[in-house]
Amino acid sequence: MDLAELEEVLAEASLLVEPDEAERLLVSRVAERLLESCRERFLKKGGVLDVSIEGSVAKDTWVRGRGEVDVFIHFSKETGRDVLESTVLNLGREVIEGMGGRSWLRYASHPYIEGEVDGVRVNIVGCFKVTHGRWMSPVDRTPFHTAFVKSKLTSELRRETRLFKGFLIGNGLYGAEIKTEGFSGYLSELLVIRHDGFVNLLRSASEWKLPVFIDLTEAVKRDEALRLFPNAPIIFTDPVDPSRNVAAAVSLTKLAELMLAAKLFIESPSLDYFKPPSRERRDLAEVDLGSRCLLGVLFRVEKPSPPDIFWGEIKHTMRGISRRLEKEGFHVYRSAAAQSGEETLMVFELSSLRLPEAELRVGPPVWTGNALDFVRKSLRRGDRISGPWVDGERLYALLRRRAQDADELLKEWIKGRQVAVSSQLLDSLRKAEILTSEKGLVERLDGREEFIMFLEEFLDGVSTPIKHFREAE
Amino acid sequence: MDLAELEEVLAEASLLVEPDEAERLLVSRVAERLLESCRERFLKKGGVLDVSIEGSVAKDTWVRGRGEVDVFIHFSKETGRDVLESTVLNLGREVIEGMGGRSWLRYASHPYIEGEVDGVRVNIVGCFKVTHGRWMSPVDRTPFHTAFVKSKLTSELRRETRLFKGFLIGNGLYGAEIKTEGFSGYLSELLVIRHDGFVNLLRSASEWKLPVFIDLTEAVKRDEALRLFPNAPIIFTDPVDPSRNVAAAVSLTKLAELMLAAKLFIESPSLDYFKPPSRERRDLAEVDLGSRCLLGVLFRVEKPSPPDIFWGEIKHTMRGISRRLEKEGFHVYRSAAAQSGEETLMVFELSSLRLPEAELRVGPPVWTGNALDFVRKSLRRGDRISGPWVDGERLYALLRRRAQDADELLKEWIKGRQVAVSSQLLDSLRKAEILTSEKGLVERLDGREEFIMFLEEFLDGVSTPIKHFREAE
Repeated sequence: MDLAELEEVLAEASLLVEPDEAERLLVSRVAERLLESCRERFLKKGGVLDVSIEGSVAKDTWVRGRGEVDVFIHFSKETGRDVLESTVLNLGREVIEGMGGRSWLRYASHPYIEGEVDGVRVNIVGCFKVTHGRWMSPVDRTPFHTAFVKSKLTSELRRETRLFKGFLIGNGLYGAEIKTEGFSGYLSELLVIRHDGFVNLLRSASEWKLPVFIDLTEAVKRDEALRLFPNAPIIFTDPVDPSRNVAAAVSLTKLAELMLAAKLFIESPSLDYFKPPSRERRDLAEVDLGSRCLLGVLFRVEKPSPPDIFWGEIKHTMRGISRRLEKEGFHVYRSAAAQSGEETLMVFELSSLRLPEAELRVGPPVWTGNALDFVRKSLRRGDRISGPWVDGERLYALLRRRAQDADELLKEWIKGRQVAVSSQLLDSLRKAEILTSEKGLVERLDGREEFIMFLEEFLDGVSTPIKHFREAE
Repeated sequence: MDLAELEEVLAEASLLVEPDEAERLLVSRVAERLLESCRERFLKKGGVLDVSIEGSVAKDTWVRGRGEVDVFIHFSKETGRDVLESTVLNLGREVIEGMGGRSWLRYASHPYIEGEVDGVRVNIVGCFKVTHGRWMSPVDRTPFHTAFVKSKLTSELRRETRLFKGFLIGNGLYGAEIKTEGFSGYLSELLVIRHDGFVNLLRSASEWKLPVFIDLTEAVKRDEALRLFPNAPIIFTDPVDPSRNVAAAVSLTKLAELMLAAKLFIESPSLDYFKPPSRERRDLAEVDLGSRCLLGVLFRVEKPSPPDIFWGEIKHTMRGISRRLEKEGFHVYRSAAAQSGEETLMVFELSSLRLPEAELRVGPPVWTGNALDFVRKSLRRGDRISGPWVDGERLYALLRRRAQDADELLKEWIKGRQVAVSSQLLDSLRKAEILTSEKGLVERLDGREEFIMFLEEFLDGVSTPIKHFREAE
């Protein structure tokens, strides 16, 4: 790594991620007005003890163009959850609308109000005012997170945090929501603090071995953490609550992508890594399927669940379909999904869209009680091709398949509930169009620009950090 | 099981397996003459201490039509192996030819003379006369085996032994040679002795669990035997030498076939189990390939190794080819081989004779030193279809295959020594015809009746005991 080159890239990247004066002014003005207005409305209510600004605006770590004001309403521990919720929803809405903004309902661990004021995203969230450690709801930790991070960040580390967040955004790794399964803002800040800067963090990440264990407080030892979180690919114990893994939402793939992105960036630093990969407007005619074997599921969900729940359903369903396909004898290379309006498209790339006519039926070991039964039934089957025979301790037979095509089989499985799909999506999936690259998948997407772009990217199949590397090299 | 029915079947089976008076007379006359003649020739030689009849004729346990006279020449321990061998080969040949018979050389653990006198198969084998346990060559145990079995067999158990051997023959399970990997004569006798009869033995075998441990002397405990023979599916400790497993040659498949045969016979007893399955003369036109995917390797070996070594080479080569095919992405359902004159045919049934154009290349985990290298090289490859991408901790890419057809690939692998085949067969395999069911495999076998019959049986794919069951039901 050429240090001068690196410094130049980082200087340019800072320009991309640091909010300018106008943005700072706008965001802080919205924050102050919102805080003031919330104090006026909420503090009058019984049970409300305090109102505060939290999140990246409080910590001054937001990335340019992504300023988002989080106001927390602190309720007394005695307040009922239903009272907390209805108070936040009703008064929150009034506050935002009173400021001339728009607002809508969102769900995380509990309902909160999201809105927009003067073009700035705002959130109004209710929490219980508890002493450290006596959490009553998950967001009760947030004020402690804010305080901890503020106590550790210098203005230099704020710049470094923004670089890291920008790097995560540019590589599709930012955000703990289920669609992304990446790195939350708080986790990003802790990582930068722990490694004392962006470049040190990337150097470290490029050499991580799995599972990754990181700690700031030494409250929990590595061995104990691995026992507490046995399947986590990365563990960062929360300095505010050591029994909690701040990185719990990070998937193995996203962790590996960060590790690879760090390696690639160090190998050839480039500003590209801080920008979303270039997406060009595509025409249907440009989609080259070659000899690809794609199975597509296109369906409409009129009243989808909130995004985090919806993407959980999508991922659960895709896993179920992949497993069923593999069990039947297909080989699933990759899968991905995209949403556009009310429509969702799931795509699976297979080694083949058609199974061989003959299917190997694995029978019981000869010493089991049903060996005789398998022999007798196999001999009588109309779809017997050959066998039964003995190989090792087991019986086998070769049978003729009823259906061989992936699309036909998937239709049957959904109809007959023989595939594990999300129950919330079942009705939509029953009406889904099951398409293949051989039978009109691409043609069906004509005019749906987002799906065409998604398909082009899927066909290229290059992970985002590698796309940057390809452009930078 | 209907006992009367069973008794009737066993009575009929006895007629099949018991030698008649004429055969007994012929065999015993040949045995006496051969013993006399060997005594005359060998006992004059220095170092020869004794001459004896061993094997199934000595034990009176041979199956009708299979009388085989084994004469053992006992040499003193001081005799050199080369002297023993040359004496047996030279004098043995003279003895047989002096009796008007034909003779030829055979190899087991060491060379011996096989021949035919008056239509009866004879063997002349040299062993060292040792005290119990001080074995110098593997056949030194044989006289002790003979003595042990003779001491245990009653005339009733001789009848039962012949039934069991006939049952094994009828199910293709008799013989410890590599081609069969089944049950030796000695093992059959011990099994009948241990279970005090044929039906008891079958009842027991139908309930065996793996691994099977059987013992007559209680010299070795089950746990110790499992430690001594960790991978053996069946252990029968030799009463003459408890450190030896009499059943060492029995493969898991053949053991399982006996267990299944026992179950099937008990379920519906029939004389069929004591006869070789019916084989009809077949025409090429009768071979129905349906949609079967067969890969055939037809080759000529002009000077094959002795049968046991040759079949070891064939099996080793078939395992090597199967593994290579599986590694490449083919699925091998079954394989088998047949020999006819100088020609050998190996057949593999695959799920498909052609691989998909796209091949998934599994790259290294992202945390390894060569992850960067994989990324760089994959991006530059002319055969790249898509990727590289990250999934879990690993990198993957989709590449275009150069060759997709099983026959073309196998030709290349043999040429480039990229498949583990027996080195003794390599030259023959290089000149082999690699055929498929799509490209003239069956047509090429026109006029080779044995291969056509073999192929018909392979296509039916029913294990021999199940064939009997199918006919009996």
